[in-house]
Amino acid sequence: MSASTRLIIGVIGANQPSNVTYRLAQEVGRKIAERGGVVVCGGLGGVMEAACKGAKEAGGLTIGILPGEEAKTANSYVDIPIVTGIGYARNIILVRTAESIIAMDGSYGTLSEIAHALQMGKPVIGIRSQIAPIDVPQVGDPEEAVERAFAACADR
Amino acid sequence: MSASTRLIIGVIGANQPSNVTYRLAQEVGRKIAERGGVVVCGGLGGVMEAACKGAKEAGGLTIGILPGEEAKTANSYVDIPIVTGIGYARNIILVRTAESIIAMDGSYGTLSEIAHALQMGKPVIGIRSQIAPIDVPQVGDPEEAVERAFAACADR
Amino acid sequence: MSASTRLIIGVIGANQPSNVTYRLAQEVGRKIAERGGVVVCGGLGGVMEAACKGAKEAGGLTIGILPGEEAKTANSYVDIPIVTGIGYARNIILVRTAESIIAMDGSYGTLSEIAHALQMGKPVIGIRSQIAPIDVPQVGDPEEAVERAFAACADR
Amino acid sequence: MSASTRLIIGVIGANQPSNVTYRLAQEVGRKIAERGGVVVCGGLGGVMEAACKGAKEAGGLTIGILPGEEAKTANSYVDIPIVTGIGYARNIILVRTAESIIAMDGSYGTLSEIAHALQMGKPVIGIRSQIAPIDVPQVGDPEEAVERAFAACADR
Repeated sequence: MSASTRLIIGVIGANQPSNVTYRLAQEVGRKIAERGGVVVCGGLGGVMEAACKGAKEAGGLTIGILPGEEAKTANSYVDIPIVTGIGYARNIILVRTAESIIAMDGSYGTLSEIAHALQMGKPVIGIRSQIAPIDVPQVGDPEEAVERAFAACADR
Repeated sequence: MSASTRLIIGVIGANQPSNVTYRLAQEVGRKIAERGGVVVCGGLGGVMEAACKGAKEAGGLTIGILPGEEAKTANSYVDIPIVTGIGYARNIILVRTAESIIAMDGSYGTLSEIAHALQMGKPVIGIRSQIAPIDVPQVGDPEEAVERAFAACADR
Repeated sequence: MSASTRLIIGVIGANQPSNVTYRLAQEVGRKIAERGGVVVCGGLGGVMEAACKGAKEAGGLTIGILPGEEAKTANSYVDIPIVTGIGYARNIILVRTAESIIAMDGSYGTLSEIAHALQMGKPVIGIRSQIAPIDVPQVGDPEEAVERAFAACADR
Repeated sequence: MSASTRLIIGVIGANQPSNVTYRLAQEVGRKIAERGGVVVCGGLGGVMEAACKGAKEAGGLTIGILPGEEAKTANSYVDIPIVTGIGYARNIILVRTAESIIAMDGSYGTLSEIAHALQMGKPVIGIRSQIAPIDVPQVGDPEEAVERAFAACADR
C-alpha cells in the first residue's frame, strides 16, 4: 500500500487541442486538485499542460510521465517530471500509474492510451471525446468527469 | 540500412481467436513466407501462433516479441524469441519493427497496436477486423492482405 | 522547466541490506527531505523502503518507480507509486528521473543503475558502497552524501 | 519452446573500439555463426558491427536490438533490426534475449549490460575486457570465448 491516500487521476488528450478542449482540461485539472487528487499526464503540451495548469491553480500536485530524455521537456506546471526516455512506451506507464483516467479529445496516441487502459481493466471516462471507442462512458463537463473518475477508483 | 532485403511484416490479433480467424492468420503467415517476408508478432498463442505456423510451413523465418521474461513462453513456431520483459510495452516494439502490419480480429491489445501504428504512420491492413478503426483499410482474404502489406512497404 | 524548485534525488541500494545500511539509507532519506528534496527510488523494500521512511519522518515527498504492474507492491512510505510494468528496465527511468544519485551498498541491480548513471553523465555519490566502480566518489556518512548530491545538482 | 535449435549469443562492447577489439569481435561473430549460432547485439557500430560482419562472413543470422526509432540506424550487417524506440532500456532486452553473452572491452553501457546479465543469472564470458567486474570469467581469444558461451547455454 502506498503512503498516500491521494488518488492519482490520469488526464489524456491532444497535444494540440482546440481552445475549448484546452479549457475543459484545465477545469478537469482544477477539480481533481480541489478534491485532493494528484494529476498524472504525459507531461508535454496541450491537454497535458492544461490539466497541470488547472491543478496548480488549485494547489494540487502534478506528475508528468515524459517520453524523452530530459526533464526540461516538461511543461511549466509539472511538479514531478518522470523522465522515461522510452518514447511512446511511456503511454503505458501513464495508464498503469493512474487509478482512473479522463480522456479528452485527441488522436491516435490518445486512442492507444485508452486501448491500453481498457486492456488493463482501468476505468476510463470520456469527456466530449470523439476518438474514444463506443464502450467508453462519456460525459459532457469536467465536474461530472472528475466525479465519475473518483467514484470509479472507489469501486475498484 | 539492414543487410536483409527481406521485408518484415507484423501480424497482430486475438490470442483466443475463432477457428476462422486462426486459419486466416495461418494463411497470412504462409503467404508472407512464400513472398520471402519475415513474420514478426507478439510470440504467444492464437493469431500469433497461427501466423508463425503458416510461415514455418512455407519455410519462412519468424520473430516473436515476447512480453515476459522467458524465451520458453514463445509458441512452438517462433524461430527468434525476443525476450523483452517489459509487458504490454512490447506491443510498441512489435509495431516499430514491422514495416507494415496486418491486423486480424482481436481485442483492446490489438487496438492499442493499431493505434500505435497509426500514430507512427506505419501502414496497417485489416483483414475482417471488427476492432480496427474506420480509417484502417480492410480486405477480405489473406492473399489480398499480404499483397497490400508488401505494396505498402514499397511505397514508403 | 518543471514547476518545482525541489530537487529530485535518487537513492539506490540493496533490497535486503544489513541493519547498518538500512539505517544509513533512512538517514539519507531524512536529510534529503530536510533540505526540501524529493526522494525517488525503486519503490520496493530494503534501502528503497528505508530512504522513503526517513523522508516521510521529515515530512518529505517520496516517489517509487515500481518494476511490477501493481501500485500495491510499493513500500508503505511511497507517496507516488509510478507503476511501470517494465521490470528491471525501470532502473533506467529511476536514474533518468533523479537529478543526482546516492548509491548505498547493493548488488548487481544497484551496479546496473550506477552504470546507467555514469553512461548518462548523471552525478553519483557512493556511501560505503562496495559495489560501486572506483570512479564513483565515496563518502562515509549520510550528511556528507546528501550535501554532495545537492551540490552536484547545482553544478549541472 | 522456440522452433529454433540455434543458440542466440549476445555480443556486447564498445561502439568505438580499438582495432584489436574490432577484430576480436569480428572473429567472435564468425565463430558463433560457424557453430550455427545467431548473433544478437545492440545493432549499432563498433563491436556490434564487427560481430555482425563476422557472422555474415560465415553465413550466419544477425539480430540488432536498436535503441532508436528507425531501422536504418542498424549497421549494414544486421539481418533483423528490432526497432525498440526505448533508448538505453533496450540493453536489458538484448541481455534477456541472449542465452549467453560475450563481453568485449567497452564502457559504462557495456558495464550496465554485464550487471543486468549477472542480475538475471545469465552466463557472461569476458574476452580481454577491462570493464567487466572481477566475478566475470575471462578468456584471451575468440575461439575459447565462443566455446565457453555455447557450453554455458548447454549448462542451463
